[in-house]
Amino acid sequence: MKILITGSGGMIGRKLVERLARDKTLGGKAITGLTLVDVVDSPIPEGCPNNSKGIVTDFSERGVATTLISERPDVIFHLAAIVSGDAEANFEKGYKINFNGSRAFFEAVRLESDKSPYKPRFVFASTLAVFGPPFPDPIPDDFALTPTTSYGTQKAMTELMLADYSRKGFLDGVGVRLPTICIRPGKPNKAASSFFSGILREPLAGQEAPLPVGDEVRHWFASPRAAVNFFINAATIDTSSLGPRRSMTMPGVSATVGEQIEALRKAAGNKAVALIKRIDDPFVAKIVQGWAGRYKPDLATRMGFKAEKNFDEIIAIYQEDEMGK
Amino acid sequence: MKILITGSGGMIGRKLVERLARDKTLGGKAITGLTLVDVVDSPIPEGCPNNSKGIVTDFSERGVATTLISERPDVIFHLAAIVSGDAEANFEKGYKINFNGSRAFFEAVRLESDKSPYKPRFVFASTLAVFGPPFPDPIPDDFALTPTTSYGTQKAMTELMLADYSRKGFLDGVGVRLPTICIRPGKPNKAASSFFSGILREPLAGQEAPLPVGDEVRHWFASPRAAVNFFINAATIDTSSLGPRRSMTMPGVSATVGEQIEALRKAAGNKAVALIKRIDDPFVAKIVQGWAGRYKPDLATRMGFKAEKNFDEIIAIYQEDEMGK
Repeated sequence: MKILITGSGGMIGRKLVERLARDKTLGGKAITGLTLVDVVDSPIPEGCPNNSKGIVTDFSERGVATTLISERPDVIFHLAAIVSGDAEANFEKGYKINFNGSRAFFEAVRLESDKSPYKPRFVFASTLAVFGPPFPDPIPDDFALTPTTSYGTQKAMTELMLADYSRKGFLDGVGVRLPTICIRPGKPNKAASSFFSGILREPLAGQEAPLPVGDEVRHWFASPRAAVNFFINAATIDTSSLGPRRSMTMPGVSATVGEQIEALRKAAGNKAVALIKRIDDPFVAKIVQGWAGRYKPDLATRMGFKAEKNFDEIIAIYQEDEMGK
Repeated sequence: MKILITGSGGMIGRKLVERLARDKTLGGKAITGLTLVDVVDSPIPEGCPNNSKGIVTDFSERGVATTLISERPDVIFHLAAIVSGDAEANFEKGYKINFNGSRAFFEAVRLESDKSPYKPRFVFASTLAVFGPPFPDPIPDDFALTPTTSYGTQKAMTELMLADYSRKGFLDGVGVRLPTICIRPGKPNKAASSFFSGILREPLAGQEAPLPVGDEVRHWFASPRAAVNFFINAATIDTSSLGPRRSMTMPGVSATVGEQIEALRKAAGNKAVALIKRIDDPFVAKIVQGWAGRYKPDLATRMGFKAEKNFDEIIAIYQEDEMGK
């Protein structure tokens, strides 16, 4: 089985590639080649089959998707996107990469399947930003797509196309709406959600971390390991029982910042908690206000997607996977 | 005020143009010109301002939207589309006209507004086919977009873009999800919903009409006159109170086929009802099964959109507007 991964140089992409290289199989079938696509170099980890290769390219450029699909990968993991803030600041770029680019893959698959039978599993990394306020608590699976960012709009439009191309039999699509990934390894970034990881990651490393919101702020989380499991599951589930709704809200841990802090206290003590520095950042506080804290991911749960049960588990996974504990 | 109307040669388009020609104003402002765009000739009714013109063109062809928008219409009624059955049978054509074509208008407006301030009201004719089964009864405003046709998918994607372009301030969009229009004047057509009009229109003219479904089938209706009112209202409401959700399910009459028949009996007697001939058509019956019969259009109702109260009114409007009674 041949696998194509876009966004393979990103944090989740790299972990997914490492997992596939380790497993050597997907859904019981031997992996014969991995094609890793990103605008940056994708590391090819040990254990990858010989037929694996990294390609540095922008998939939203004309002809790129067609060329990639002409190799007829059996599974496509489409993780690449520009992030929310970038898509909001750069309107044309957001639509070009996040929407046109995804559409180019769908069209490439459709036209390839016109030549001779071909129907790959297409796993699409979507987002909970397809939902926008006002929303109920928790947000059910059948809540309206009401994005309030261009990023969320582009992902919602792609979800709709994924479902239509699946319904028409051109591909076999599964959309995975990821929770906020926590604890992200590495350095803080400019995402408004960065502090959710920072207030755990930095104190666990003995460093200070800023906290721009109150303890009562509730959010929806899953570990990087859970995210990789979501993608593996999405590539291997029986979609015949999925029905026409191909994109699913993933399960997650609903936790307040206060609950995150208590989990940190259990794992690393009061000294670690003391490293969290409360700061005033009305800009971030306002963005975070528009986010939901609770979902009811019935369909994904029924389809076997699993996240952690609480923040103790999320911290333990970080310590195991990133700190060698 | 200059007005652009696409689909101006269609049944609703022609009625909308006639109404604007009669009113001579829209939202209290004098209409100075109507530009009527369709792939067929658009009749220019008496009373239109001198600056009115009909253009026979396909708006989804390259450059057409840009040219039309370069005249800076204050209000755009975008009614043109290919219908559900055509979009389902002709996949590429459906996306080209129903999605790419609408997107071309949005982009033309955005790029025009880049040159100097320009923010037209953009009224988009959407559809209840953005919803697909399984759904609750009634379907609330915040129910998920789950189309099960390519047509519904293309309209849902356009709704999402309309909201995003409105949020970004490029245009001022309002999406109007039309009920099934009843009683359609003219001849039966190939739409699966054709019989809903036929079982009233034909008997009112003393002719037989086939009925392919049972009396218990429930559906959501509004008259052509109500549809024109929806568009006028959409062009003139204060969108600042609309929030981020720019597309609305329109109010309608929820009625069963049995209730339609009883309204016909009241209006035209048993002799008219006897002209309805029950036939077996499992193909149509199956399509109709996937349609909802009841909605809860709270947002549109709050925004002043109004439909008829019952089928007696719908029949009376047909008799007034089409039969000269």
